[in-house]
Amino acid sequence: MSEHIKTRHFLVETIDVDIGRSLVLMNELDAEELGLGANCRVKLIRGDRSRTGIVGITKTVVPRGKILVSPDIAFSLKLTNGEEIGVRPLPMPPSMSALRKRFRGERLSQDELFSLIKDVVEGVYGEAEIAAFIVSQLYYELSEDELYYLIRAMVETGSKIAFEDTVYDEHSIGGVPGNSKVALIAVPTIAAAGLLIPKTSSRAITSPAGTADTMEVLARVDFTAEELKEIAKKVRATLAWGGKLNLAPADDIFVNIERKLGVDPWHQMVASILAKKVAMDVNNLVIDIPVGRKAKVHKMEEADQLAGIFIRQAAKLGMRIKVAVTYGGQPIGLTAGPALEAKEALQTMINRKGRRSLVDKALFIAGLVLELSGKVPPGRGYEVARDIFTSGRTYEKFKQMVEAQEGDPNIKPEDIELGQHQATIESPLEGAVTYIDNAVINMIARAAGAPFDKGAGVYLHAKVGTRVNRGDPLMTIYSNSASRLEEALNIANTYPAIVVEGMLIKVLP
Amino acid sequence: MSEHIKTRHFLVETIDVDIGRSLVLMNELDAEELGLGANCRVKLIRGDRSRTGIVGITKTVVPRGKILVSPDIAFSLKLTNGEEIGVRPLPMPPSMSALRKRFRGERLSQDELFSLIKDVVEGVYGEAEIAAFIVSQLYYELSEDELYYLIRAMVETGSKIAFEDTVYDEHSIGGVPGNSKVALIAVPTIAAAGLLIPKTSSRAITSPAGTADTMEVLARVDFTAEELKEIAKKVRATLAWGGKLNLAPADDIFVNIERKLGVDPWHQMVASILAKKVAMDVNNLVIDIPVGRKAKVHKMEEADQLAGIFIRQAAKLGMRIKVAVTYGGQPIGLTAGPALEAKEALQTMINRKGRRSLVDKALFIAGLVLELSGKVPPGRGYEVARDIFTSGRTYEKFKQMVEAQEGDPNIKPEDIELGQHQATIESPLEGAVTYIDNAVINMIARAAGAPFDKGAGVYLHAKVGTRVNRGDPLMTIYSNSASRLEEALNIANTYPAIVVEGMLIKVLP
Repeated sequence: MSEHIKTRHFLVETIDVDIGRSLVLMNELDAEELGLGANCRVKLIRGDRSRTGIVGITKTVVPRGKILVSPDIAFSLKLTNGEEIGVRPLPMPPSMSALRKRFRGERLSQDELFSLIKDVVEGVYGEAEIAAFIVSQLYYELSEDELYYLIRAMVETGSKIAFEDTVYDEHSIGGVPGNSKVALIAVPTIAAAGLLIPKTSSRAITSPAGTADTMEVLARVDFTAEELKEIAKKVRATLAWGGKLNLAPADDIFVNIERKLGVDPWHQMVASILAKKVAMDVNNLVIDIPVGRKAKVHKMEEADQLAGIFIRQAAKLGMRIKVAVTYGGQPIGLTAGPALEAKEALQTMINRKGRRSLVDKALFIAGLVLELSGKVPPGRGYEVARDIFTSGRTYEKFKQMVEAQEGDPNIKPEDIELGQHQATIESPLEGAVTYIDNAVINMIARAAGAPFDKGAGVYLHAKVGTRVNRGDPLMTIYSNSASRLEEALNIANTYPAIVVEGMLIKVLP
Repeated sequence: MSEHIKTRHFLVETIDVDIGRSLVLMNELDAEELGLGANCRVKLIRGDRSRTGIVGITKTVVPRGKILVSPDIAFSLKLTNGEEIGVRPLPMPPSMSALRKRFRGERLSQDELFSLIKDVVEGVYGEAEIAAFIVSQLYYELSEDELYYLIRAMVETGSKIAFEDTVYDEHSIGGVPGNSKVALIAVPTIAAAGLLIPKTSSRAITSPAGTADTMEVLARVDFTAEELKEIAKKVRATLAWGGKLNLAPADDIFVNIERKLGVDPWHQMVASILAKKVAMDVNNLVIDIPVGRKAKVHKMEEADQLAGIFIRQAAKLGMRIKVAVTYGGQPIGLTAGPALEAKEALQTMINRKGRRSLVDKALFIAGLVLELSGKVPPGRGYEVARDIFTSGRTYEKFKQMVEAQEGDPNIKPEDIELGQHQATIESPLEGAVTYIDNAVINMIARAAGAPFDKGAGVYLHAKVGTRVNRGDPLMTIYSNSASRLEEALNIANTYPAIVVEGMLIKVLP
């Protein structure tokens, strides 16, 4: 049907406005003539390129015959101001019938999933349809076949980067504060062993720091695909931000909605992770699943199930994989927040020792990657990784990486600037730390300004099992904003982040 | 927590732009300072009033210290240009925890549903969250208690109109082409019997004509609450559009998203209908459920289930109700589209006879309303309604209604303007009409321009059971736009709307 709907032509101009969607602002009378209201979808056509926009209506801002478009549209259609483009109402996205099929719990074919994801990436859908796709998964899980098709579709609708050598990678599903710095130690260890590991990662979504945020304290992280390949050629490793590379762009769209809804269906998470890896040409992967109260996975059996999904999909994708289930019951190391974590990682590499939760985790994961390569026999990876780390080769490789990413390789831990405002929480009694709440630590660090304020975050003076006296410091909060520090303190005083218990719990009358 | 988030003040100006949400356009640097990105929610505060807006970001359109707001915000906060208002980030809607509870399939309390609906009406949620609430209902139906709380919440978050006399009403769940004109006959019949029936209805959502669209061909339909009461006082009946009355405004928000997703959960539909009725002070209601292939309800057992939901909720709400399950296997009468239907209804009332599918249906429903009133003994409603109709009192009352609603009471059917372009589809063979596809008739009439183009629609020359010769007209399509007519014709030629079958189906070699 849509073939018979009329296309009208308009003079275009870019409007510097970001409303989180592709905006086409048009005069009320033009809109009426095309049968369009606010929020309607239109197809924008320029030569043989086309894309979708969402209509906004105005009486006065735009005269008849003209439209204003947001910069993303101008960019993808390569428009210059004053050019003419075609606008055509788009009544029903081609993949809508597939979406409705999913609502009814019916299985989607490879073609249906591809057309759905294509429409998602092309901006054909608004938030409602994307949210509906995600929420439907809470009730009808994707089948393993559907998940595979979803991953393929997410890869095919984005860019890919090819490397000449075999590509290794490691990835944590996250959820535990302080985890972003693990990769800063694991990746150079792996590269020091001679493997190619061009790691890209996202910025923090709900945590106080993502690996890209933390690395950014020490070096540049936003590179084009060409630059990334150049760096990888030179030093065999990167710690970069994937945001500019257009790898599986559907993922960013899904993540944005998942965050709003506070839901994160497993199959969707597996798809997001593996699609980005396939797009980065990864063929050997170690996945880290932290398990613990207030981590993303709470129980061992759940971790096994999730690991099973990863393993089966990797097999379908022709990717070699190992899944590490790790302890996620409290934060990793002593720090949460970009600068604090960068400092702890750097210090740990320079000193060739540090908190076991950090060093052991990084080296276990690096070891598994080494075992995948076949260069190290099964069961001996950790040992080899530890040798690399204690011999100083991890730090040497890390310095090369920082330099290749345009940072100062000789930066000292004490040179790293932390938030200029600080406040310390003290223990209210004598006893031992029995519990640290990951979710509250995350909340405090984010309230203090992390990850946007790189100096913001939390330093833990004590971890589970540490004996403390009354008045001993439990944690210090850092922020560059006095009012944000106050906000973070308020949360810390409301929710117990670090639980100290003495032997005597209570006295009855 | 949100209590500790800073409020900043900005000079405000209205921007004449409708993007289907409440827009707050601010400078990139101001947004960054407040930790806001595109699509983030903010609370806008002016004196003791406040409401929610969605952030848009610009580098150049708005200078620092200033914000542009869409007209709906300016209206509800009574803002004048150049005034100062407070802007505060709104990280997490208060009812988000209730929404997440629903995702997990847990039951919501009355307070939780109220806070959820309040946030929906106040614009706190974007499409994603509202879609998620609706889609969750496809998998976990609302309980009867939850449905009751939802209805109450939808009523309480809108305006109410009180009448001095007992209020009657009738309402069809819709879905069958040509149904909009039934009320044009039923309502004056009911009012002619002395009952008060101030009917308000919506415009067409997915059909080619809603009752408000059809009545608008003959009279004004957009009245304020005061005007509506005045008209009801004078002539005991209205056929008005409810859109300006702010009755259960959550409904409009839900319907908009349901339409996008092409889903319509039963409980949500019952809530929408009954909430509007409670807000209109209705205490005696007849609900029409058309059943048929390509109607909203396909099977008798489904109709029974749906009727049960209506009946139990009405009991909880203290409303007397009867549910009519009616034949919805083909269009009602011969017409679909505002002007065509207005013409058919007018002609039917003047002639005191017409198509049985129209006259019988209108009078059965009117009869049930009369029975509810107690003025007519059970089982005799139809007979009394028919007397009113054949005596001409229905038409007399309708003329009074048209006059009270500022139309011309003496308008003749032939005065009603139909679309100036027409095309007729002929029967390809000799035989009988065995099937008319409601969905295709709707598609054709909408493609022709209905309901916005009032003259657009479909006239049926034959209905199921009619014998036709080859070349006999089956239907005529009307439109005021030649290109839209072509589009509609194309659909008519692609999908069989009217199926004619002869005795000989096929000859094998």
